[in-house]
Amino acid sequence: MPDAPANHVSDEVERFLVATQEKRLESFRALLRIASISGIPAHAADCRAAAEFVAADLRVVGMEHVEVCETGGHPVVYADWLHAAGKPTVLVYAHYDVQPVDPLDLWESPPFSPVVKDGQMLARGAADDKSHLHMHIRAMEALLATRGALPVNLRVVFEGEEEASSVHLDAWLAANRDRLQADFAVISDTPFFEGNRPAITVGLRGLIYFQLDVTGSNIDLHSGGYGGAVDNPINALCQIVAALKGPDGRITIPGFYDEVVDLTAAEREAFARLGLDDEKYRASLGVPALHGEPGYTTLERIGARPTLDVCGIWGGFEGEGPKTIIPAHAHAKISCRLVADQDSEKIFGLVADQIAKVAPRSIRYSIQRLGDGRPSLTPTDRPTTQAAVRALRATFGVEPLFIRDGGSVPICASFESILGLPTLLLGFAPPDGRFHAPNEWMSMANYETGIRTIVRYWDEVAQLDHL
Amino acid sequence: MPDAPANHVSDEVERFLVATQEKRLESFRALLRIASISGIPAHAADCRAAAEFVAADLRVVGMEHVEVCETGGHPVVYADWLHAAGKPTVLVYAHYDVQPVDPLDLWESPPFSPVVKDGQMLARGAADDKSHLHMHIRAMEALLATRGALPVNLRVVFEGEEEASSVHLDAWLAANRDRLQADFAVISDTPFFEGNRPAITVGLRGLIYFQLDVTGSNIDLHSGGYGGAVDNPINALCQIVAALKGPDGRITIPGFYDEVVDLTAAEREAFARLGLDDEKYRASLGVPALHGEPGYTTLERIGARPTLDVCGIWGGFEGEGPKTIIPAHAHAKISCRLVADQDSEKIFGLVADQIAKVAPRSIRYSIQRLGDGRPSLTPTDRPTTQAAVRALRATFGVEPLFIRDGGSVPICASFESILGLPTLLLGFAPPDGRFHAPNEWMSMANYETGIRTIVRYWDEVAQLDHL
Repeated sequence: MPDAPANHVSDEVERFLVATQEKRLESFRALLRIASISGIPAHAADCRAAAEFVAADLRVVGMEHVEVCETGGHPVVYADWLHAAGKPTVLVYAHYDVQPVDPLDLWESPPFSPVVKDGQMLARGAADDKSHLHMHIRAMEALLATRGALPVNLRVVFEGEEEASSVHLDAWLAANRDRLQADFAVISDTPFFEGNRPAITVGLRGLIYFQLDVTGSNIDLHSGGYGGAVDNPINALCQIVAALKGPDGRITIPGFYDEVVDLTAAEREAFARLGLDDEKYRASLGVPALHGEPGYTTLERIGARPTLDVCGIWGGFEGEGPKTIIPAHAHAKISCRLVADQDSEKIFGLVADQIAKVAPRSIRYSIQRLGDGRPSLTPTDRPTTQAAVRALRATFGVEPLFIRDGGSVPICASFESILGLPTLLLGFAPPDGRFHAPNEWMSMANYETGIRTIVRYWDEVAQLDHL
Repeated sequence: MPDAPANHVSDEVERFLVATQEKRLESFRALLRIASISGIPAHAADCRAAAEFVAADLRVVGMEHVEVCETGGHPVVYADWLHAAGKPTVLVYAHYDVQPVDPLDLWESPPFSPVVKDGQMLARGAADDKSHLHMHIRAMEALLATRGALPVNLRVVFEGEEEASSVHLDAWLAANRDRLQADFAVISDTPFFEGNRPAITVGLRGLIYFQLDVTGSNIDLHSGGYGGAVDNPINALCQIVAALKGPDGRITIPGFYDEVVDLTAAEREAFARLGLDDEKYRASLGVPALHGEPGYTTLERIGARPTLDVCGIWGGFEGEGPKTIIPAHAHAKISCRLVADQDSEKIFGLVADQIAKVAPRSIRYSIQRLGDGRPSLTPTDRPTTQAAVRALRATFGVEPLFIRDGGSVPICASFESILGLPTLLLGFAPPDGRFHAPNEWMSMANYETGIRTIVRYWDEVAQLDHL
């Protein structure tokens, strides 16, 4: 546990948190042991098990109306506590599902056998996002155990499909609009800034994700007997991919940047003030050079500019040695990160148009959409944002930064558009926590202090005279 | 067994072949059951087992000096019979190794459990090249059993690394130059023409084969948190591949076509006379359109023009659903088919130069060579070629065609340059035999008649007054 100033939460809450630390760690490990990979159908039962685990935890700590809600996909866990008369109502969001784990051989220890080493909890989902979900329940537990009440009204929405593009969530939110009434939403699924500096994410990128399947001949062909006379699906796929983004990192799809909101001088100054050291950043990633859209800094490229990446590609012979074939098919998984004000439907249309334009007539192809999410921006001067600044400052002892993260939390835009809720992104993951990669980890100092931040935040919000 | 004209081989040989047909089929099956995949190190013992099987077979039929020769890789099987005084000496080549079998799920029956169905022997290696090896031994057997002698002197070189670029063969040939003295070489590893029309391959393409490995960051990165700031090895790999061959099928590597011998008007007429039906060919492959270098016909593209194909590609996430990463690395296996007078060393240098020129500085890459072979052309008016025409005509009952195959038999150029031997390509595989692909098959009619062709060919060669 980190050294924490005695005044950041009340003495009784602090005593409770100190007394329950071991039990808390054991419960966190138990949650991390559940392989709730939402994107792989074979793990559906694990996702349900995680939902049931979380629901049971919420019941035990004293939350009410706890329900594992059917969505048509992996369930949503709902709970509430609504006895803080006259105080704001906050919807709390985190997700219990996790990313796939391959390549498995790069993990130092099995992804679902959590281990703590040097203050790091190593496991798939340790940072993204079971830590945040677990911290919220622990904050509720500490408050309800010590005071018998929460300072604000809370509604909990813990999702199970965030890593699978939240396919069923929008429909569930729309169907449950009435019982989800609140003043604003707190979404906990974001990291601190480089160097583990406390930060509030005020910008998130949107996402489109699709699979491109290219088909040539009906069987793999001998590259000697047929090479030159028929097109090669891998070569064709590479041509298509190369026609989506130029070697300079700029996307070459006509109209792609049309709706992108330009950075203001003030915003560019704010990015510059964050003071990212490009050389340190480059060295930490082990790349020979950073690379991105000309005319923008690294943080601008990540926070304020859209991009296009192939997340996976495969086709033909992957074994050892030479095998001389023209494969029958080739495949790529492609994602675009979007920024305000890009519309995912419109962007997907532009991408599909460009593929149609450049795909050779000598192959067939199909596009399978695997989900998307809208970009989002939060005002820094909002009272609920400033309350978070105070809570972070009080508990971590430093002034938090405002950052625009390159990632996507599709739920953000859904809460805004479907439920009409302003959102605040309050996350505590270490920025180098290897989310989505082997050896994902959570800083246990961030975890412990973050629980105190959440307690303090509810106290701060309870004192706001307007939101 | 096909109806065979009684006069195409002597009555006693024909009687022997009829009487031994079942035994022959069983022996062929036994050879096909050995998973002698030369390109996969785990199958080294299977390759040795195949070599021992073949050596034992040669001993039993009466060949002499049978030896399983060490090469540093998979062994070469040598044998000879040199008692035809005053007659030509012929070096006979085939290979006992086979291609890998994946994708395994596309095989109708297991690749090393040979089955005969509708006159087709279905198994990996059934056509390429165990059929030819087995047919040669059966021809030797029939002649030695019925006449106690062969009409010509034979030296047998059965290789085990043809599908792995014959890595150790050139050194072994050079070291055994003395005992490999002959008048010419017969190489049996080629198919008939479309429609299973008997044909003699007079042109073969050469080959270079290499693996291109592209590396980015030291771990897979979250495509949200890093996308736009670092290069993506898959996107970079696609850019590199797209810079090697244009969408029109023409290779864009500077200097690549410089040494290619132009087709003469007579050669183009000969290709045209073969009368390939493009539409039938297209439909049989299931492609929406044929595709290749502008200005050339399908047969010219396959037989007389070089090409570049990606035989395999992989990197990042290949599983179900969306996984949003920038992968740490990406890989491709790339082959070029070469034609006379392209030199594989020079072409490899040009390819490497182009990759160096177009590879972004934001990634690292390396190239691993996986083998190569020189292109080859055989004169059609050579007496040994004309003897093959007569043998094919006598046994198959039709005039054989001369074709240029797009494949590569590196041994051809090795025999020419290391041993100083002219070569003749005498193969009997069905042109649609799915060499290197799932469900490879051999026509059992071609197999049976082909054995008779070989017997007849040795009789024809024995009567030549000059070679």
